[in-house]
Amino acid sequence: MSNQNFEVLFLERGVADVRECEMPSAGPGEILIRALVSLISPGTERAFLLGLANTSERYPQHTGYSHIGEVVEVGAGVEGWAAGDRVASRANHKMFATVPASNCNHVPNGLTNERAAFFRLTSIAMQGVRKARIELGEPVAVIGCGPVGLLAMQLARLNGGLPVVSIDKDAHRLEFAEALGVDAALPADDELPTALRASIGGEDPALVIDATGHPEAIPAAFDLARFGGRVVLLASTRGDTEAVNFYRDVHKKGLTVIGAHESTRPRLDSAPGWWTHQADENTALRLIAGGRLVVDPITTHRFSWRDASAAYHSLARWEPGMMGTLLDWQNE
Amino acid sequence: MSNQNFEVLFLERGVADVRECEMPSAGPGEILIRALVSLISPGTERAFLLGLANTSERYPQHTGYSHIGEVVEVGAGVEGWAAGDRVASRANHKMFATVPASNCNHVPNGLTNERAAFFRLTSIAMQGVRKARIELGEPVAVIGCGPVGLLAMQLARLNGGLPVVSIDKDAHRLEFAEALGVDAALPADDELPTALRASIGGEDPALVIDATGHPEAIPAAFDLARFGGRVVLLASTRGDTEAVNFYRDVHKKGLTVIGAHESTRPRLDSAPGWWTHQADENTALRLIAGGRLVVDPITTHRFSWRDASAAYHSLARWEPGMMGTLLDWQNE
Repeated sequence: MSNQNFEVLFLERGVADVRECEMPSAGPGEILIRALVSLISPGTERAFLLGLANTSERYPQHTGYSHIGEVVEVGAGVEGWAAGDRVASRANHKMFATVPASNCNHVPNGLTNERAAFFRLTSIAMQGVRKARIELGEPVAVIGCGPVGLLAMQLARLNGGLPVVSIDKDAHRLEFAEALGVDAALPADDELPTALRASIGGEDPALVIDATGHPEAIPAAFDLARFGGRVVLLASTRGDTEAVNFYRDVHKKGLTVIGAHESTRPRLDSAPGWWTHQADENTALRLIAGGRLVVDPITTHRFSWRDASAAYHSLARWEPGMMGTLLDWQNE
Repeated sequence: MSNQNFEVLFLERGVADVRECEMPSAGPGEILIRALVSLISPGTERAFLLGLANTSERYPQHTGYSHIGEVVEVGAGVEGWAAGDRVASRANHKMFATVPASNCNHVPNGLTNERAAFFRLTSIAMQGVRKARIELGEPVAVIGCGPVGLLAMQLARLNGGLPVVSIDKDAHRLEFAEALGVDAALPADDELPTALRASIGGEDPALVIDATGHPEAIPAAFDLARFGGRVVLLASTRGDTEAVNFYRDVHKKGLTVIGAHESTRPRLDSAPGWWTHQADENTALRLIAGGRLVVDPITTHRFSWRDASAAYHSLARWEPGMMGTLLDWQNE
């Protein structure tokens, strides 16, 4: 084991780079892991890198929360983990990290590190889909074809949505939805309400999931949902939504609007519709391992950890084709 | 039976008066009723009278929807109704009116006409409370001490809310809540979040019901609700809410926001949380008849139908003490 450790840091607004850092050791209940692959969460990490609305704007800042590693050392009192086990954890983009063993999941045998690295974006999408309580045969629209939107689209299908329609302003992003087998992919233009209704047999969607992060997508979601429907607020909106007519758009339509930020999970016990991090992440790993949830078409970029600066530079520039972006920590 | 008929009309913006109108007769499935008492719905009727935001602004306009009458004539195919029966219906403020028999409820024996006239405002409040699915022991805050807010407050208590707190900007309106036995009545001032928490033993409310109709009360309701809580949008908001930070106030708090306008009911069949007009109105009549829901303290004004113009003149001026306002149709 090397005695050097490295991590990715947001040094100041818009600037990310790799820095050497202290080598940790596993305390009681912890495991020490060495990174294999970590996934950049493009929407959230870009927002925090650039200090967009509703972010902390504190620098330097640690980043990353979707980490596949290998156990190096097991702390006192830890059961069920041994050196060499593969671990899915919420560690930052960091070569050596300690994490509470109780927060982690084993990576299923046969699942590649690259695919496993999507466990966390999948669980973020999953808690939004869970809260919608989809019934078999309900039409679903997902606005936004970023990684979280594309994962939510797949999860809505796996959970009974029929049909499930993806919506985006960007034609290139709609191609990802098509590659993932969406029932229909529609541009967010003036024809959308009509096209959406046509794509689901003359009905409006029972459920609309906002996965865009744009404050003005929320009234649009209210507008698309059918009478008595639900709107799930999944992607973190960066800024205020102006002039919301709750009476016309929420009261009179009998909508239920569900705030579904990842951080609202229960701490220790899963409850119906409200699962813990670990429970959803475990489901995500099993869905990916079993081939029911597909991530290869959205794995678009790979960087060595040494080139993290370049990865974030691309992310900051906003390339619509930048979906799943992996940092490879095995390549020294 | 007189051969003259009269109704209240909004003649133009701000002007209400009584006009003679045609005498109807009961068609198939209908009953012809003669008014005993009708109740003015102050928030909604004032808004439509003055053409506030989110109203039709068409004049002349029929008005009123909370009517206690007596059956005069029964149409073909109607079962269960006979001349002389007392009827709770959604007829306008009108001396003789026909209504579909299937939409009506019998007024329970022993229930006065004046008390019965509250059946409809109660059912409006009830559908909002139903959608919140209150669990026994959940703390509830109701913002707004107009008639609907005060009925929602009582219904929340009857449905398991503990404690139930009423909130209003107007001190006089808070006295009505106290007269109705609310657990705590708090002014909507800068101290409200602290006072509310103190009034429910250090917790924030699991449920906040907005019964104000003010667009800016909705972000305030988001703010008061506890992490993971629900906000029911009950009173019709008159205008846009500016600058809503959905991320901070809804996503991150894991709130569920429930649009609960009266018009979102199912047409024919009640379903869990979603009862028909007639089913809720029947429950309202039984709660009032049984003395479990109290309306006398909010029965503040009585007018002969001939003086309807004066009643609406007072309403238009906005007197905070104007709560339940009855039109008496027996006094010719």
